[in-house]
Amino acid sequence: MKTPSSLAYLTEALRRLPGIGPKSAQRIAYHMMQHDREGAGMLGRALTQAVERIHHCALCNTFTESEICETCADEERDRSLLCVVETPGDQVMIEQTLTFKGLYFVLMGHLSPLDGIGPKDIHLERLIARASDGAVKEVILATNFTNEGEATAHYISETLKARGLKVTRLARGVPVGGELEHVDAGTIARAMLDRRAT
Amino acid sequence: MKTPSSLAYLTEALRRLPGIGPKSAQRIAYHMMQHDREGAGMLGRALTQAVERIHHCALCNTFTESEICETCADEERDRSLLCVVETPGDQVMIEQTLTFKGLYFVLMGHLSPLDGIGPKDIHLERLIARASDGAVKEVILATNFTNEGEATAHYISETLKARGLKVTRLARGVPVGGELEHVDAGTIARAMLDRRAT
Ligand SMILES: [Zn+2]
Ligand SMILES: [Zn+2]
Repeated sequence: MKTPSSLAYLTEALRRLPGIGPKSAQRIAYHMMQHDREGAGMLGRALTQAVERIHHCALCNTFTESEICETCADEERDRSLLCVVETPGDQVMIEQTLTFKGLYFVLMGHLSPLDGIGPKDIHLERLIARASDGAVKEVILATNFTNEGEATAHYISETLKARGLKVTRLARGVPVGGELEHVDAGTIARAMLDRRAT
Repeated sequence: MKTPSSLAYLTEALRRLPGIGPKSAQRIAYHMMQHDREGAGMLGRALTQAVERIHHCALCNTFTESEICETCADEERDRSLLCVVETPGDQVMIEQTLTFKGLYFVLMGHLSPLDGIGPKDIHLERLIARASDGAVKEVILATNFTNEGEATAHYISETLKARGLKVTRLARGVPVGGELEHVDAGTIARAMLDRRAT
């Protein structure tokens, strides 16, 4: 008795999702085929389409379907301020505070030497080039206030200051150990106003 | 600032997976786009292909890519024995024991009135037709020994016996290798009642 090959392939493919082991993958595959074929078809199309269309903004590195994302293309934004965040979700949180009208650079992660994540993985060379465009007057580091986020901020700060750039860090209004995505907008707004030179 | 629509659509589609909430869906979408596009593409193709190709065996109701599954099409199997299981995984377990050479019917679930799962959802009409083909001499109920599995076995048993079919149930008892001290009293009581001559 053999599992149909397309079902075996689906079970194998589901294991590529983070945190899904072999038992869960099989359970999900059976569930989708039995109870939610519409959802399975929708997710199949969504994945295929996302892989085709989504890439990184040439300027800020966030996810976009265009060459340049909407934020970077917005002529109203202050091109002298560049805010560095770890993830697109962090950028969303800062936008919600309405305290920042500059541009962003999204690292898509943070330094983590133990996991083998180094400067190249957070696109440091592209950040240096971006921050050195002549228009940027201040780089605001808004990485998380976790150990990795602080270490990342420190590393970027040293690198950019060595190139003569003004670098600031969100004030420690954000609780130490806190992740931006889980902090209320008021706290982030305060931290933005209190940002200090590093 | 807007999330690219194909990324928003992917996040929404991921919520169709069992047990995935909005936060997890966004985390997974970002992860796949950032770190595993190959896996995302593979999963997209696997889902699309599975929805196209997988359906239920016309005889036993298990998942198959053919009209009749490999097991049902196997001429060597004993067509007088029909074993009823809840899931394809249960069928695999029984196959591994090498103690059964008959055919199967896969309910794809169990009765659960509180969840609105009734006889129609476990394809009882099809099971009745299947068991009444004239070749089947004995229906062996191998649903789980949980409350739902036992209730399902009872319901099927009454239904099939009313049509004059011979219906049996897997024996209950102390697991092989089980120590009485560590087996629950209900199991021991059942094993005592079902004791057999040696
Ligand atoms: Zn951009
Ligand atoms: Zn079959």
